[in-house]
Amino acid sequence: MDRLIDKIKKFMNPTVVGLDPNLSYIPDYIKKESLNNFGNTFKAAADCILKFNMQIIDAICDVVPAVKPQMAYYELYGYDGILALHKTISYAKSKGMYVIVDGKRNDIGTTMEAYSRAYLGKTELFNGKEHSAFDGDSLTVNGYLGSDGVKPLLSDCLTYDKTIFVLMKTSNPSSGELQDKQFNGNETVYDYMGSMCEEWGKDTIGKYGYSKVGAVVGATYPDELRKLRARFPHTFFLVPGYGAQGGKADDVALAFKDGIGAIINSSRAILCAWQKNDCDPFKFADQARKEAIRMKKDIVARL
Amino acid sequence: MDRLIDKIKKFMNPTVVGLDPNLSYIPDYIKKESLNNFGNTFKAAADCILKFNMQIIDAICDVVPAVKPQMAYYELYGYDGILALHKTISYAKSKGMYVIVDGKRNDIGTTMEAYSRAYLGKTELFNGKEHSAFDGDSLTVNGYLGSDGVKPLLSDCLTYDKTIFVLMKTSNPSSGELQDKQFNGNETVYDYMGSMCEEWGKDTIGKYGYSKVGAVVGATYPDELRKLRARFPHTFFLVPGYGAQGGKADDVALAFKDGIGAIINSSRAILCAWQKNDCDPFKFADQARKEAIRMKKDIVARL
Repeated sequence: MDRLIDKIKKFMNPTVVGLDPNLSYIPDYIKKESLNNFGNTFKAAADCILKFNMQIIDAICDVVPAVKPQMAYYELYGYDGILALHKTISYAKSKGMYVIVDGKRNDIGTTMEAYSRAYLGKTELFNGKEHSAFDGDSLTVNGYLGSDGVKPLLSDCLTYDKTIFVLMKTSNPSSGELQDKQFNGNETVYDYMGSMCEEWGKDTIGKYGYSKVGAVVGATYPDELRKLRARFPHTFFLVPGYGAQGGKADDVALAFKDGIGAIINSSRAILCAWQKNDCDPFKFADQARKEAIRMKKDIVARL
Repeated sequence: MDRLIDKIKKFMNPTVVGLDPNLSYIPDYIKKESLNNFGNTFKAAADCILKFNMQIIDAICDVVPAVKPQMAYYELYGYDGILALHKTISYAKSKGMYVIVDGKRNDIGTTMEAYSRAYLGKTELFNGKEHSAFDGDSLTVNGYLGSDGVKPLLSDCLTYDKTIFVLMKTSNPSSGELQDKQFNGNETVYDYMGSMCEEWGKDTIGKYGYSKVGAVVGATYPDELRKLRARFPHTFFLVPGYGAQGGKADDVALAFKDGIGAIINSSRAILCAWQKNDCDPFKFADQARKEAIRMKKDIVARL
């Protein structure tokens, strides 16, 4: 996790911008250009998503350390969308940003190896040649299948200096249906997942005391956030739910200890800042930058 | 689930062939042709995977009702791999096969809607135009996030007559780490997930008594399979773990009641039958067909 924490320290900004590019977030002038060039097709949708993302990245890359593309919004446009995702990842990395691919992948051992190679490591082609398919810096993971579904990622994390974030306590309203249930002895499912994260990560702890196995903990459950921060000292948190989902700066501050320990995500509030402020659509990226800086200040003031 | 069960009854064959196309499964003559045409690239890998899949589909489509492409093995080759997946799904459907997209997707509400549209429903483009990105018949899903992460799929399941399979008790060795743990009252995590499947599916029960919300239960845990079949009468089971993973016909027979209630997956044993039998590589598809028929007889004899 050192590489991510170094970037956070450099910018003094523990936030990540979620790139969840709904077409309704994109200004008409960009959509019109893509429509003119490619017709009413997936290719046009993917083209305007990529253009939108690139301008957002240009506007934030000197103030925000990381982006988090949410795969669903690219898979929605088929292989054209996946090509836009690939180019978004490459572009963000070329601008020095840390890229957390939000895919929440999960499967049994050999299949998880394939996901690991696809998103963090390298794919084997013919005659031993290897090439990276997506080359993210980090991947979100669902641990329902246990160690078999997480350990295959660890070797790529070590070889290529990458990280993962395992779902612990998610930000959505129904997350408690399973995650809050208590085992005999009053340990919750999310507590247990946290213990597994500490165990999976124990041989990968870096200079800041955090392992390469982080966890997703929602800002919408501040009491849990406080308890989990104390209980799992080597697990770095990726915190969704700030802003549009209702999480406040005082809530997300609970994810930190001594000023580090978490990165806070905001997606819609940043991508749609230009709509909320009813401003010139041509200045959507400036508005995103302003909102990113406002968010940084809002959070850093509480640490 | 009626459309799938109708196909199973037509062929008197409750099995599905997993399309997990590792390059090492593909005969050299196919790989050489793709290498000659596209060089040592993702495009070449995707090309030979598609050719392999199409020949497998041609060889089994009159005896096997369904295929289950495992997304990891396509994502491994980036957007070229996703294009091969798209074409594989289309081709299998054109041959009358039911396509279960094995993606184990999971996320919060609005994002899950995007996955649902991508794999089961239709994607909205510009000016209200809609188009299907992948148009699978079914998608595998991980229910760790609770109802918010499953309910968005139900409306597409109803509108487009599609289904989902939620992970309940998976086939891998470590599945018990979380899934076997007991809540106060001795209910296990997988029991609880099964109860949620019955609840999610209750308004979608078809003519055979099964809902559109199926569940994944591994053949490698036959005791659980027997108990779960009795406990969740409206939940159709997708059963991995037969063959290469160690599940036997006597084990998978426990997933059925009155001859229906489950579909059994085999991937490697069918795709690699030509290697196991050391036969002419040009007859790989014939060998896959023979193994598919052997598997069918093996299982049907126990029902």
